[in-house]
Amino acid sequence: MTVSTSSAMWQGGLKSGGGTFQAGSGAFHGSYSFPTRFESAKGTNPEELLAAAHAACLSMALAAGLEKAGTPPQSITTTAACTMEMVGGGFRITTMKLMVRGRVAGLDQGAFGMAAEAAKEGCPVSTLFKGNIKMELDALLLE
Amino acid sequence: MTVSTSSAMWQGGLKSGGGTFQAGSGAFHGSYSFPTRFESAKGTNPEELLAAAHAACLSMALAAGLEKAGTPPQSITTTAACTMEMVGGGFRITTMKLMVRGRVAGLDQGAFGMAAEAAKEGCPVSTLFKGNIKMELDALLLE
Repeated sequence: MTVSTSSAMWQGGLKSGGGTFQAGSGAFHGSYSFPTRFESAKGTNPEELLAAAHAACLSMALAAGLEKAGTPPQSITTTAACTMEMVGGGFRITTMKLMVRGRVAGLDQGAFGMAAEAAKEGCPVSTLFKGNIKMELDALLLE
Repeated sequence: MTVSTSSAMWQGGLKSGGGTFQAGSGAFHGSYSFPTRFESAKGTNPEELLAAAHAACLSMALAAGLEKAGTPPQSITTTAACTMEMVGGGFRITTMKLMVRGRVAGLDQGAFGMAAEAAKEGCPVSTLFKGNIKMELDALLLE
């Protein structure tokens, strides 16, 4: 069992205030605000953290699956795009688009696509989001 | 509608390889590995990113709720602890413990606790995780 901890502080009201977050390990930190979350202002927000978590988990899970099948990858790169929108008067995180690109010797597109789909279905972050978000996968083996 | 993007690259096998992640905004980046994810080695992992996302979302949502009720906070601090464990032969993210501390003038513990519970139930990240994880809340108004 592992326990991973982070913290965040918000000061003031929703639009007048602002927040900061930091990883318990010290590996990352940042600041966020109403404009960086809801108005596409330059900066970060919780959804960018979720996208990073999903991209990291999927890349690792797919590498593990490929290795188990006898074709460990040279590299797996995932770009995750997290959409937040108004649904019924409230903000909802509705979609995670996962663009996966792999460099793997001795594999064809079909086998790579199936392995990517299995990682998308079974990785721990996908399991955490399951049923509550639309997940879209675009997987491609690079030459 | 807002779209937030991050990416991650894994190179090599599960235990022999390693990964890096980065926010599309450039606000944060980091590296992770099997030991930092599953063996409590010093460093970060996807679960620490999820904990940061949840802490940031909850602190912001609670501040918004308190402001709407006429008692905007001086500060709301949330520490989120994300547990990963083996369930039925696979790794699962099972629990998020949310420790919330507030400084709010003109509010009592009962009202603060109710506002924190509402934020825990309704914030976008809680909604994303709902039904797939145990969420525990410990909310306390500081003097």
